[in-house]
Amino acid sequence: MVERRFQLYDTTLRDGTQQEGMVLTVEEKLAVARQLDAYGVGFIEGGWPGAVPRDTEFFRRARTELNLRSAQLAAFGATRRVGSLVSVDPQVRALLDAETPVVTLVAKSHPRHVDLALRTTLAENLAMIGSTVRHLVQAGRRVFLDAEHYFDGYRINREYALEVVRIAADAGAETVVLCDTNGGSLPDEIEAVVADTLAATGVPLGIHCHDDTGCAVANSLAAVAAGADHVQGTAHGYGERCGNANLFTVAANLVLKRGIEVVPVEKLRQAGAIGRAVADLTGVPAHPAAPYVGSSAFAHKAGLHASALRIDPDLYQHTDPALVGNEMRTLVSDLGGRSSIELKARALGYPVAAGSDAVARTAARVKELEHRGYAFESADASFELLLREELGGKPELPFEVGSWRVSVDQLPEGQVRTEAGVRLYVGGVPLIASGEGNGPVNALDGALHRALEPFFPQLAGLELVDYRVRVLTGETGSAAATRVLISYRYGDRRWGAVGVDENTVTASWRALLDAFYYVLLTEPTGERQAAEPAVAAAS
Amino acid sequence: MVERRFQLYDTTLRDGTQQEGMVLTVEEKLAVARQLDAYGVGFIEGGWPGAVPRDTEFFRRARTELNLRSAQLAAFGATRRVGSLVSVDPQVRALLDAETPVVTLVAKSHPRHVDLALRTTLAENLAMIGSTVRHLVQAGRRVFLDAEHYFDGYRINREYALEVVRIAADAGAETVVLCDTNGGSLPDEIEAVVADTLAATGVPLGIHCHDDTGCAVANSLAAVAAGADHVQGTAHGYGERCGNANLFTVAANLVLKRGIEVVPVEKLRQAGAIGRAVADLTGVPAHPAAPYVGSSAFAHKAGLHASALRIDPDLYQHTDPALVGNEMRTLVSDLGGRSSIELKARALGYPVAAGSDAVARTAARVKELEHRGYAFESADASFELLLREELGGKPELPFEVGSWRVSVDQLPEGQVRTEAGVRLYVGGVPLIASGEGNGPVNALDGALHRALEPFFPQLAGLELVDYRVRVLTGETGSAAATRVLISYRYGDRRWGAVGVDENTVTASWRALLDAFYYVLLTEPTGERQAAEPAVAAAS
Repeated sequence: MVERRFQLYDTTLRDGTQQEGMVLTVEEKLAVARQLDAYGVGFIEGGWPGAVPRDTEFFRRARTELNLRSAQLAAFGATRRVGSLVSVDPQVRALLDAETPVVTLVAKSHPRHVDLALRTTLAENLAMIGSTVRHLVQAGRRVFLDAEHYFDGYRINREYALEVVRIAADAGAETVVLCDTNGGSLPDEIEAVVADTLAATGVPLGIHCHDDTGCAVANSLAAVAAGADHVQGTAHGYGERCGNANLFTVAANLVLKRGIEVVPVEKLRQAGAIGRAVADLTGVPAHPAAPYVGSSAFAHKAGLHASALRIDPDLYQHTDPALVGNEMRTLVSDLGGRSSIELKARALGYPVAAGSDAVARTAARVKELEHRGYAFESADASFELLLREELGGKPELPFEVGSWRVSVDQLPEGQVRTEAGVRLYVGGVPLIASGEGNGPVNALDGALHRALEPFFPQLAGLELVDYRVRVLTGETGSAAATRVLISYRYGDRRWGAVGVDENTVTASWRALLDAFYYVLLTEPTGERQAAEPAVAAAS
Repeated sequence: MVERRFQLYDTTLRDGTQQEGMVLTVEEKLAVARQLDAYGVGFIEGGWPGAVPRDTEFFRRARTELNLRSAQLAAFGATRRVGSLVSVDPQVRALLDAETPVVTLVAKSHPRHVDLALRTTLAENLAMIGSTVRHLVQAGRRVFLDAEHYFDGYRINREYALEVVRIAADAGAETVVLCDTNGGSLPDEIEAVVADTLAATGVPLGIHCHDDTGCAVANSLAAVAAGADHVQGTAHGYGERCGNANLFTVAANLVLKRGIEVVPVEKLRQAGAIGRAVADLTGVPAHPAAPYVGSSAFAHKAGLHASALRIDPDLYQHTDPALVGNEMRTLVSDLGGRSSIELKARALGYPVAAGSDAVARTAARVKELEHRGYAFESADASFELLLREELGGKPELPFEVGSWRVSVDQLPEGQVRTEAGVRLYVGGVPLIASGEGNGPVNALDGALHRALEPFFPQLAGLELVDYRVRVLTGETGSAAATRVLISYRYGDRRWGAVGVDENTVTASWRALLDAFYYVLLTEPTGERQAAEPAVAAAS
């Protein structure tokens, strides 16, 4: 077997979307693909073109909109239909039309599935595999074969399972991926079957595991120990039933514990941030206790541990959290937060001193606000306002709020009208404006623009591009809170602001206010106009 | 080594409570212990008497209030202090005062920890272990020894690690539990170290794993394969950082995959219910994707799978969910197509024929709606309304909507008031009602209840428990849509309804309407009252 580069293959966008509660738009799939590329996976399986319209659309848009740096895109699909010609098979055609460098074919390797699900003979199944692989290879594709139910099939009919591997490789498949489709296997079984298959066929092998016995990660490692050099998984272990092998965990284990550099170490250092970004995009949060990237993964509570950690962190952690973009937290004190606040402040251009009081105060406030449901990771504007307050004292606000209101009315004719009104004060002079929109956030944003732009023309460049709402049930320990995150574009920059309240509309209002204050405090081009508001306000 | 019964040892109430966000009262600890006993674990570690006042209290109350049927209670604590007499050690005294049949002692087996954390010599550490174990055994206790950091210690100084095991056993410890305290080990390492330790000492061994590499379950199984016959874990894998080995997963694997009956099979059949009860008591939910007992553990979405499941469920599940008190579910999604719709319809009690037109029409509508942003997986009410329409034609609606409105006002004094109003028609007669709430969804729900309950008393049982908002950015180039999913409790059942619109409030209104229609169409107990709405509506 020729030495080759280890293949880390991500199937978040195909198998991962089988996860209960996950429905991704094409836009979101493209954004997730960019994150996976940044993480350094070798292959990104985008979906099943021809079978799922959204996936066909994904591959069409990927051609122009997705500029992958290191990963190759793979289209997933089945072998040709029973008793048909591969050259006229519409599904195989759709795989070619996806125009990806890689095609991953799924094929049966379990006699019972060939019989009951495919309803054909064992020989025809082999012919389907051979002809489809050959057709795709001749069309210039790299072909991987996912041998479905391989381990269950192997137990029933070893010879047939091996024949599937041989046929696919003979036809030109560059890797045959052994799939524990039902996820019921344990590591020793996986290791034995992979070792035997490799010895009997000499074909480069991959592994695809599910977590139904809680062993997906260990099963993947067992396959690698037995000689597989291609591992499939999904971000955060997303997937049907108990999920797929968690790619973040598998990759960190391989790099840090086995010395197999499946992703570059400098990219592994971004795992935490990439994991959070993917979870934000899919709307399905990672488990806090997830190894390496989970928010609790390096959080210590025990008194025994906390005191030992003060002596030497390595006494109670198995690896340096910085290697996977995470950090140690001590749950009883706020010591954990300061260094990250310090780093963040410097990244934003504030030259804070190490261990400064302002940093300590900011850390304490962030901690308190996060306890109430705030999240600052995607809300630079809100964070920077807070930091500036602690660094330079409460600033003179460019405007003040009197009152605001929003109403949504469905008229008897059916259409819905959303109106907002704000009453603000600039230099003590009242300003009243109203706005309409396709929802409360939009209408309030419009009213703020109308009221303030005459005095602060720099606000004309402030454009609301997106918002997200998260209901935090019981997470904060008190009554349900709502977190609203609003993204704005201002010039070349995109940033967000966050608000929390039990009332969704009030939470939105807080985030909107932060965004407007942020522009006025950091882009004070309009201050001269603001100096004489009384005249303009009279209009 | 004498043949002995396999020991399944639960530490939910001690190590499990290190879980971020978990704080249990004595009452709750007692209730969790009863559930664990019902599950059939052999030992329940209740806490650390003497060190944690709440745990001292737990053991005091356990003597009279906890009538365990099969499990034995264990008290956890440390060996005597450095350079002191065990007979006068207050902490050892507290262990005896707990009056449990079992005492589990934690001891250092890693030279660096003896040096840095314990600040004593290697010899004194051995003396502490020997004298404390002997003292407790002489007092009539069964003693287990938890050898902390055993695997990391073994790597640095194998001889010392083995000596800890021998000293403990010589002093009378019946099992020495090798702990992967930092959770950084992988299965092959665990297996090798356990096998070597067993060969070198002949002492009965246990295993205690943490999930920092995502391998806690596999590590536990590897230790059992190497000869350990005592496994420690926690319910749902609760615990510090990434958690402990999930006892439910380990036990199900051992019983169903290894034929080691660590819990009786008839008790394993209650795992699902026991898992839910424990999660309710601790307030920390199990991961939906948790193996065997998770709510998604046997949930299927893929079309490929759904069509095969119709033929034979065993084709796509690794074990019978009934064996672990769980059940198969089919999720409705555009990935699944007709087969999953058919399965779902049957699960809801609609005897649809295979390949029926109604199923095809429902599948087409689901697909079209999902393209517009709907998601039916967690919205059984909305799906069932759709299915009923396709099966039986558009039903006579119990009420019709004239108009509705919501207003949110922040008054100058700062407080925010949310009001909603609805104008409905029951039998052509108008009904007007208003409601207040902590947000638009709440206020509209209140107004609907107020308007309708006098005519449909069965709505009194309908309780809004949760809602989720998802903004779907830029799909198919149109304006952003918002998906609102509202969860309701009605009697024993929980189900959801979904609405989509560019306006968040309108999307919420659609989901609310579905929920109310659903109850009225499927629980027609109030139809008699509904037959004469005109009179009541006049009020």
